[in-house]
Amino acid sequence: MSVDLLVKKIKEMGNPSVAGLDPKIEYVPEFIRKKSYEKYGKNLKGAAEAIWEFNRTLIDALYDIVPAVKPQSAFYELYGLRGEEVMHRTIAYAKEKGLYVILDVKRNDIGSTAEAYSKAYLGKTEVDGVECEACGVDCVTVNPYLGTDGMLPFVNDCKTYDKAIFALVKTSNPSSGELQDLLVSDKRIYEKVAECVNNWNKDTIGNSGYGAVGAVVGATYPEQAEILRKLMPHSYFLVPGYGAQGGGALGVKPCFNSDGLGAIVNSSRGIMCAYKNGDWKEEQFAEAARAEAIRMKEDLISVI
Amino acid sequence: MSVDLLVKKIKEMGNPSVAGLDPKIEYVPEFIRKKSYEKYGKNLKGAAEAIWEFNRTLIDALYDIVPAVKPQSAFYELYGLRGEEVMHRTIAYAKEKGLYVILDVKRNDIGSTAEAYSKAYLGKTEVDGVECEACGVDCVTVNPYLGTDGMLPFVNDCKTYDKAIFALVKTSNPSSGELQDLLVSDKRIYEKVAECVNNWNKDTIGNSGYGAVGAVVGATYPEQAEILRKLMPHSYFLVPGYGAQGGGALGVKPCFNSDGLGAIVNSSRGIMCAYKNGDWKEEQFAEAARAEAIRMKEDLISVI
Repeated sequence: MSVDLLVKKIKEMGNPSVAGLDPKIEYVPEFIRKKSYEKYGKNLKGAAEAIWEFNRTLIDALYDIVPAVKPQSAFYELYGLRGEEVMHRTIAYAKEKGLYVILDVKRNDIGSTAEAYSKAYLGKTEVDGVECEACGVDCVTVNPYLGTDGMLPFVNDCKTYDKAIFALVKTSNPSSGELQDLLVSDKRIYEKVAECVNNWNKDTIGNSGYGAVGAVVGATYPEQAEILRKLMPHSYFLVPGYGAQGGGALGVKPCFNSDGLGAIVNSSRGIMCAYKNGDWKEEQFAEAARAEAIRMKEDLISVI
Repeated sequence: MSVDLLVKKIKEMGNPSVAGLDPKIEYVPEFIRKKSYEKYGKNLKGAAEAIWEFNRTLIDALYDIVPAVKPQSAFYELYGLRGEEVMHRTIAYAKEKGLYVILDVKRNDIGSTAEAYSKAYLGKTEVDGVECEACGVDCVTVNPYLGTDGMLPFVNDCKTYDKAIFALVKTSNPSSGELQDLLVSDKRIYEKVAECVNNWNKDTIGNSGYGAVGAVVGATYPEQAEILRKLMPHSYFLVPGYGAQGGGALGVKPCFNSDGLGAIVNSSRGIMCAYKNGDWKEEQFAEAARAEAIRMKEDLISVI
C-alpha cells in the first residue's frame, strides 16, 4: 500500500513533515515575479511561470530533507489553465526528485463522479480501452460529506493502484466545529467520520501497520486529536495548522502514535515564506526554506 | 444578484431545468470519437477533443430551450490538462450562447484557500495589482463541511461580482444519509446545514425574492426536500437525481415554491445520451438531446 512508501520515506529521513506548496503570488520573491512579468506579462501566465520558478527552486532545496510535498490545488486553479499546467509540472518534478506527492484537492461527489475524480488523480483514465494517466499523484485529500458511496471509488483505487487518501475528519479552521463538532447521541460528527475512516481503512493495512485511508486532523485541536488517534489507530494523519495557523509541536504530539509514527505535519507558509523572517535576503528564499524545514523537523522530533 | 439572472432566464424560457455536461467518453457517439482519435490519437487529447465536439453540438441544440448548463468538473479533470482546456472552452462557448453556467466543482477548504477557489471561479485573480479572470462562471457548487469561514469567501464574492453558489445540503446519492441524516438533538444534519445556508443567504436577496446562496437538494429524497423548502424559502435549489438517478417529476415537486420558482432540475445522462434510447441514429444525438430537453421541460411544467 502506498502509505508504506510514505512511512519508509519518513523513517529514512527521520522527518514526519510535508512541505505545502500553496504558492500565493505574494509568497513569491519580487525578483522572480519581476523577471516573469517581463517575459510573459503581468497576467495569469506571468504569475503561473513565476510560481513554477519558485516551486522548482524550493523542491531543489527541500527534496533531500522532507519526504513529501503537498501542492494545494486552489492556488493553481486560481491562475486558470496556466496555473493548472504549472501544477502538473510541479507534480512531475517533485516525483522525479523522489518526493511523495499529496495533492490537496478535497474532492468528492456522488459515486460515479467520485470515481472520475479518483481515476483522474489516483487511477488511470480509460480512453476506449487505452489506459492513460491524467495526473498521477501518490495521494489526495477527500471530503467525506457524501458518505461511503462517494468514498469507495477512492478506496478501491488505493487498492488497485497502490495509492493513499486522507479524508477530512477535523479540519484546522476556526469554524470547523459548526458541523464537525455537533453531538449525535453521545458522539461528535468528527468521531462518527473517524469510525467510517477506520472502517474504510480496515482491509488496506500494509506492512507498516498503516492503511491507505488516512485522516486530516488539524494541529489546532489537540484534544480532539487525542480522541481521534484512538479511534483510527491504523490511519495516518495529515496535520495542517502547524506554525502559521497557530499550532506548535506540542499541539501536534497527540496526532502521533507511541511508535513515533502515524502523522505527517504540514507547513506551507512557514517554509515558503521563511525568507521573510530574520535577516534573509529574498534571493536566499530557498536557503531560508531549507533552514526552516530543518528547524521544523527538529521541533517535531523533540516531542515525539 | 446573479440568481436574479437565472430566474429571469428560467421565466423567459418557461423551463426550470439545467442540462448537465458530464461528458464521460462513453456518452460521446462513436463517429465523433473515431474522428477525434484519427486526428489526435487514442489518448487524453483525442478524448478531450471528442468531448469538445460533443459539447459544442449539444450547446448549439439546447441554448434556446434550456436556461443553463452545468459542466461537471470531474469529467474534465479525468482527461488531465487537455480535459481542463476543453472545460474552459465549453464554459466560454456556453456563455457566448447566452447560457447561465453553473460549474459543478463542489470545492471547499479553510478560509484563505476557499478564497482562492472563490476568486478562481467567481471573482478575479489579482496579479500584482492587475485583475485577471481565471475561469469566470456564473455559479459554483460548494461543500459546507468546513463551516462558515470556508463559505464566506464565496458569499462575499457573490455580492461583489454578482454571482451565486449552491451549497451541498442533501445530496442525491444512496449513502448521503450516513452523515447528512444524523440526528443532532431534534434536528438532522441537513437541517442544520439548511439553517446555515438560510443565514448565509440573508443579505443577498435580490429582486426575484431569491438570494445568492442556494442549496443542492437531491430529487431522490422528496420528503426531505419538503422540509428543506420551508427552511430555506429564499434559496434556489439545484436538484440532481431527476431521470437517470431515479427521481421523476413528482419527486422534484417539493423542491419548488408555490410561485413555481425556487428550483432548477438537472439532467445530464438523460439529455446527453437521449440518442441511445428509441429509434435515433447516433448522428442524431443533438436532435435527440433537444427532444429530451423539451420532454423534460413539459414533464416539470406539468407538476409545478
